[in-house]
Amino acid sequence: MSKKYVYMFSEGNAGMRNLLGGKGANLAEMTNLGLPVPYGFTISTEACTEYNEGGKKLTDEMIDQIEVALAKLEEIAGKKLGDPENPLLVSVRSGARASMPGMMDTVLNLGLNDISVEGLAKKTGNTRFAYDSYRRFIMMFADVVIGVSKSKFERKLDEYKESVGAKYDTDLTAEDLKKVTAIFKQIYLDDQGKEFPQNPKEQLLEAAMAVFRSWDNPRAFVYRRMNDIPYSWGTAVNVQMMVFGNMGNTSGTGVAFTRNAATGEKAMLGEYLVNAQGEDVVAGVRTPNPIAKLKEDMPGVYDQFMDIANTLEKHYKDMQDMEFTIEEGKLFFLQTRNGKRTANAALRIAVEMVDEGLITTDEALLRVEPKQLDQLLHPAFDQAALKAAKALGKGLPASPGAAAGKIYFTAEEAKAAAEAGDRVILVRLETSPEDIEGMAASQGILTVRGGMTSHAAVVARGMGTCCVSGCEEIKMNEEAKTFTLGGRTFKEGDYISLDGSTGNIYGEDIHTVKAEITGNFQTFMAWADAKRVLKVRTNADTPNDAQTAIDFGAEGIGLTRTEHMFFAADRIMKFRKMIMSDTVEEREAALEGIEPFQKDDFKGIYKAMQERPVTIRLLDPPLHEFMPNTEEEFAQLAEMTGKTVEELKIKARSLHELNPMMGHRGCRLAVSYPEIARMQAKAIMEAAIEVSEEDGINIKPEIMIPLVGEIKELKYVKNIVVETVEKVFEAKGKKLDYLVGTMIEIPRAALTADQIATEAEFFSFGTNDLTQMTYGLSRDDAGKILADYIDKNIYEVDPTARLDRAGVGLLMQWAVEKAKPVRPDIHLGICGEHGGDPYSVEFCHQIGLDYVSCSPYRVPIARLAAAQAQINFPR
Amino acid sequence: MSKKYVYMFSEGNAGMRNLLGGKGANLAEMTNLGLPVPYGFTISTEACTEYNEGGKKLTDEMIDQIEVALAKLEEIAGKKLGDPENPLLVSVRSGARASMPGMMDTVLNLGLNDISVEGLAKKTGNTRFAYDSYRRFIMMFADVVIGVSKSKFERKLDEYKESVGAKYDTDLTAEDLKKVTAIFKQIYLDDQGKEFPQNPKEQLLEAAMAVFRSWDNPRAFVYRRMNDIPYSWGTAVNVQMMVFGNMGNTSGTGVAFTRNAATGEKAMLGEYLVNAQGEDVVAGVRTPNPIAKLKEDMPGVYDQFMDIANTLEKHYKDMQDMEFTIEEGKLFFLQTRNGKRTANAALRIAVEMVDEGLITTDEALLRVEPKQLDQLLHPAFDQAALKAAKALGKGLPASPGAAAGKIYFTAEEAKAAAEAGDRVILVRLETSPEDIEGMAASQGILTVRGGMTSHAAVVARGMGTCCVSGCEEIKMNEEAKTFTLGGRTFKEGDYISLDGSTGNIYGEDIHTVKAEITGNFQTFMAWADAKRVLKVRTNADTPNDAQTAIDFGAEGIGLTRTEHMFFAADRIMKFRKMIMSDTVEEREAALEGIEPFQKDDFKGIYKAMQERPVTIRLLDPPLHEFMPNTEEEFAQLAEMTGKTVEELKIKARSLHELNPMMGHRGCRLAVSYPEIARMQAKAIMEAAIEVSEEDGINIKPEIMIPLVGEIKELKYVKNIVVETVEKVFEAKGKKLDYLVGTMIEIPRAALTADQIATEAEFFSFGTNDLTQMTYGLSRDDAGKILADYIDKNIYEVDPTARLDRAGVGLLMQWAVEKAKPVRPDIHLGICGEHGGDPYSVEFCHQIGLDYVSCSPYRVPIARLAAAQAQINFPR
Repeated sequence: MSKKYVYMFSEGNAGMRNLLGGKGANLAEMTNLGLPVPYGFTISTEACTEYNEGGKKLTDEMIDQIEVALAKLEEIAGKKLGDPENPLLVSVRSGARASMPGMMDTVLNLGLNDISVEGLAKKTGNTRFAYDSYRRFIMMFADVVIGVSKSKFERKLDEYKESVGAKYDTDLTAEDLKKVTAIFKQIYLDDQGKEFPQNPKEQLLEAAMAVFRSWDNPRAFVYRRMNDIPYSWGTAVNVQMMVFGNMGNTSGTGVAFTRNAATGEKAMLGEYLVNAQGEDVVAGVRTPNPIAKLKEDMPGVYDQFMDIANTLEKHYKDMQDMEFTIEEGKLFFLQTRNGKRTANAALRIAVEMVDEGLITTDEALLRVEPKQLDQLLHPAFDQAALKAAKALGKGLPASPGAAAGKIYFTAEEAKAAAEAGDRVILVRLETSPEDIEGMAASQGILTVRGGMTSHAAVVARGMGTCCVSGCEEIKMNEEAKTFTLGGRTFKEGDYISLDGSTGNIYGEDIHTVKAEITGNFQTFMAWADAKRVLKVRTNADTPNDAQTAIDFGAEGIGLTRTEHMFFAADRIMKFRKMIMSDTVEEREAALEGIEPFQKDDFKGIYKAMQERPVTIRLLDPPLHEFMPNTEEEFAQLAEMTGKTVEELKIKARSLHELNPMMGHRGCRLAVSYPEIARMQAKAIMEAAIEVSEEDGINIKPEIMIPLVGEIKELKYVKNIVVETVEKVFEAKGKKLDYLVGTMIEIPRAALTADQIATEAEFFSFGTNDLTQMTYGLSRDDAGKILADYIDKNIYEVDPTARLDRAGVGLLMQWAVEKAKPVRPDIHLGICGEHGGDPYSVEFCHQIGLDYVSCSPYRVPIARLAAAQAQINFPR
Repeated sequence: MSKKYVYMFSEGNAGMRNLLGGKGANLAEMTNLGLPVPYGFTISTEACTEYNEGGKKLTDEMIDQIEVALAKLEEIAGKKLGDPENPLLVSVRSGARASMPGMMDTVLNLGLNDISVEGLAKKTGNTRFAYDSYRRFIMMFADVVIGVSKSKFERKLDEYKESVGAKYDTDLTAEDLKKVTAIFKQIYLDDQGKEFPQNPKEQLLEAAMAVFRSWDNPRAFVYRRMNDIPYSWGTAVNVQMMVFGNMGNTSGTGVAFTRNAATGEKAMLGEYLVNAQGEDVVAGVRTPNPIAKLKEDMPGVYDQFMDIANTLEKHYKDMQDMEFTIEEGKLFFLQTRNGKRTANAALRIAVEMVDEGLITTDEALLRVEPKQLDQLLHPAFDQAALKAAKALGKGLPASPGAAAGKIYFTAEEAKAAAEAGDRVILVRLETSPEDIEGMAASQGILTVRGGMTSHAAVVARGMGTCCVSGCEEIKMNEEAKTFTLGGRTFKEGDYISLDGSTGNIYGEDIHTVKAEITGNFQTFMAWADAKRVLKVRTNADTPNDAQTAIDFGAEGIGLTRTEHMFFAADRIMKFRKMIMSDTVEEREAALEGIEPFQKDDFKGIYKAMQERPVTIRLLDPPLHEFMPNTEEEFAQLAEMTGKTVEELKIKARSLHELNPMMGHRGCRLAVSYPEIARMQAKAIMEAAIEVSEEDGINIKPEIMIPLVGEIKELKYVKNIVVETVEKVFEAKGKKLDYLVGTMIEIPRAALTADQIATEAEFFSFGTNDLTQMTYGLSRDDAGKILADYIDKNIYEVDPTARLDRAGVGLLMQWAVEKAKPVRPDIHLGICGEHGGDPYSVEFCHQIGLDYVSCSPYRVPIARLAAAQAQINFPR
């Protein structure tokens, strides 16, 4: 039996993607739904492979099957290819299993020749349209099928337009286009030494072969190499009847949504134009009519349209965005797809479709993109105002929302201006922990350096403040308090606007609108909570953060960074005194001055969280981050400590590191200075006992030791913690349950997780650092590199924003699999920034973590992502 | 049947370590060899466990067995414990499976009481000795068995000495010591409320229980936790008869080696003293006689001694270092162990023992510690001169050998002084690539910062120059050109000496002696080469390095760092011009100026290596490392490039990174600036073709792409390399075989090795970076941290010097296992500093690498280590 190379649309379905390509399989699916799509057939990917491997020839069998399919198509269309009276025109398109740039795309209007063009003119009563189609076909065919450069045609067209004084193509008459057609045919003849092919079947076979060959061209080759697409996949060819909406008053074209994409209201929303082509609707030359007008113009077609639209919504169980064409009273659907919508619309549609019995709550949960929820929680630009604005530059979308305000260059000035009532945008080369108050006072934050997990990004997300980071295009002049971007120079007090969801930066004051949460949100999130098995905690350093997170549905704290507490103006000097100590005794005395603050902070957090679990991390950053920056601060510290400024500077310099991210930080501090860990453990436990007693509740603190890479390191620090806690219990005459665990953020910790788990009662994956170390890529310096890498298709996405499953994920999975047998009840979570990213949350669910922890404003996203993960990968 | 708790020495053997502890098992082994060791018995580790778990009581069974064993001992000794005439004295020592500080160590002279002390005095004719032994026993027993503080006794002793005007203990007479004994007994009575125990059996049981309890004390507990020693192991108790060499002229004591430990000559070498105890030999109060004197004094004992010494050497098949005591004409061996020896002695002994038929070549190969070979290849201190010197401080032993010379603080001054004929020690905070010429001119290099794989360490090892790195004790004043260490201040021109094998720093000019290689070395290394399966390559950046390495037996180059070539004075400016380019065209033009240098360098290396494989790594370090440092250099560069100094400084600043080790370097440079990789690939291949033609040989270059972490990154850069090479082939009209491979130095590369291997024809494990990233520990900043960690027993050794098998090794193993199925003929090597470390070489052998590559001076070490690995783990 001979092999089947050609499939009519009615012979395929969506499952035949490998054989028919993505486009072919979808056209077949729609055909089989009974939808009136312009009919056609697909030449299979196998034909492509055989063509390219078999000396670049179509076999007789292939040609026979194409001819049979064409005959069927002609029969159904009621027109014949090349017919002088009523010619069938077809489009020829490539369609691989995966979409692939660099390949031949589309030839339209195939089937036209010197004779059939006249038939088309007569049939449409539009000679101009017929010749316009013909000259376009000649150019497209010559260009993409034969390889005659398009520019040759365009140059001649420009010359002709100049000769008749025409400015636009639309200024050309039918006669002009006839002449252009003749000129184009001459170009073809001159270039190829033979006439433009007049035989439509020859046109078709040539076009099909051109598609096949394009699979083999160098650009496609490089693309496949970079995207791991095997050569053997090949591409299919789709041959489809052309339909025209511009064949008179019984023709037309339009687009429509089955529900309102802005509000979600259940009401058909669409536009159409009589006697027009698709591009006319988009071009906006004529004002389209609302879809309701179709009911007046062509009631039968309208009824059919509404009927099909409903069928489509029911088939796809989702709001549809459709394109249609009416050719001489006959309706064709050219495309349908799930419609894009705002977050509010997405929620309303999902909730109402459940009410309508159309979908289950599980299906509803899958209908909303978790990241869309950001729109509901942050201010957005007024859409009209935004349309009028043009972005001057782009950074990384570090923290979502929209912000507009006056530029300030230092945290102090930003804070002062905000207190004076200004809306403020803080612009910095990079932020540091000392900028925290200025950041809190700002509407938005813009930094020149730093990636998605830089200090600015992490802190801004925690605060729910809009942030664009790592805009390396900015030329900053800190002394002059100016910066240049997109050719403009901005000075203090100038207005700019930031879009934290896209990274766009605007040089003007764009109006923003506040976020609104509807009842649908509550309904929807309740379904998510009922579904998910993954718990959602938050990263919170203050009682205020903690409360925000609870309001967003957080079930505990996965990470309290104790160091952020030391930067407040009243504490930093005390902390510096501690660092500058020369002896253990001196350091212990300084720590005693800090402990009351720590205890109060912890009490505040416990009181906010009540019995919800709270994980507190011991001091993590390198000590030099706390060093004085100004002469004044040094002088102040000298007075306070009784040391000379020179001594203090020598000490500060000795703390300098070449690669601080891989330096003296985390538990390495506790190893060198056990007294710091001792003070923190004491504050954590005393606070817990006091709040337990004051509020009559049971607090079970989780003490987290950071940056562990070796079991003995953990043992050493855990010994300190346990000894300290036991002393507190003795002094207070009361015991509490508590856990001691560790961050898994050093690759070696993951690799030796079976050892680490013997001491750690919980693991919290610190995927910020784990990603940095696993990639050997510093998040502070990644900006330029990532831009190049994403540009060159080396990284699909920024791995600091979306968890890298192949590398970092492998380490996590390894750690989980090694730890569980050693300690079956080990509690597993993630507290890196990935804890708020849906793709990453899904992975955490799949490898069996117990919870994710993310910044407060990402808690709803994580809740939904966790629910979707359970639906897609039940556990 | 009742359980056996007590084993006579004759009942055990070396294999019973778990039950008898290390010490007990070895005493048993020696006893069974027929050696006259003082007899005794061991109470098992199981008894310890039962004691500690069973309410801290010896069971009746245990006591019965101890009494039976004691009786046997008394019978063999011909003396009885507590006998008033001829008392048996015993020592009681702990002995766990692994040696463990924090446990009870030793009680000597047990068995003395008020009566037996008199017997001892009479028997030895030495009342002073008897009472000296008794008072020491009382204090030792009270201290370690009962827990009465030693200081109480020492204070009283001091008071007594003062009262009689005695300066030293030796000034006390027998009568004095009788009084001291009485005082000590009183202290015991006062503290304990009861008399010092007079019953020797009670003394014995109390001491045994004290050993058991010491297994349970807090210090031991913490030590076990940190060293993963299970509580259940327990400790054994060894009870051994005391023997005395000071019982008259038929007694004596001595030490001896079966061969000369300095030269390896086969001749007994030893010393002994008549009528003396062990400590007298060591104390040097009396000058010992050569062992030959024993022949005169006690010919029978001498013959017996020689006989036993020969037996021991034959039993252990190695040169023995023995301690012996003669008690009243009876010879006892107290200890034998394999003797320490110099490298030259080790080689001679190994080679001669093979000649003697005593050992096989395999056994000979195992007899020499690979690291010892360093002694043969580098200058050493004159031993006598060294003995007289005292180290002022200590850094890391970064590159072996000894060096003495005048201090200079900059590379330029060091170079100038060396040219003027001085021996020079270069002292720097840390070195950078620009210091290279000054380093080459120096005898030794001392740095304040940086670990075992810092720039100074790596480069010094490559040059075979002595280096001590990371001596953080040094207070450096660079402006004043002075530094302070160990309380002394050194200025330019002062002499210091460095020991690169220990890290010691001396404040004087110590005489050094040149290294010598003997014929035994060649014989021995030939055996190693015949045995090993692992190839040994070298890391070499110059033809000179390459030649040195070939002389040391290197079989190829595993790593040529192309960047080191750019720091020479005539090239750095051209390279800077390239970096400062604003456009691709400008950069390409600058690269054209550099290419001839690169090509020449490569030709030189190929010519040195001939057909041996050469792996060349594309540019690796971040570009800012090449930036000008002085205003003068900026001005020079401005003139050369036509840019302003200000522009150049802005550019230089923009290259600054917070964590350069994880920044814009390695293949990331090639992604951003493909033209650099293009230039290098062209130079590599043109040089290879030219040398192939000029020398009539076949060169097969191996092009190595560094810092790959993602398959697409490798693909991208490999595409550039392959395209460039193809162009060279076309232009030259000649093709060569070549390989394109990658470093595995980013954890993610190891984790995704199955993907990476699809493109990489070889892997070279870059364990310097891989260790840094896996530990999250910057080698530039590790100094202080490592010191704390090793001090606190968290790290056993510096993982940058010895490969961490549990973490880094796991990644390597994973990578090998994932890569092999994908590309069975993939070539696997290591080019990190671990390639020259024996323990690491063994691991590389075990996981199936094809070669190791190390600095030239470590090549012999690696060759021997590879041979030993094959003997121990044949593959």
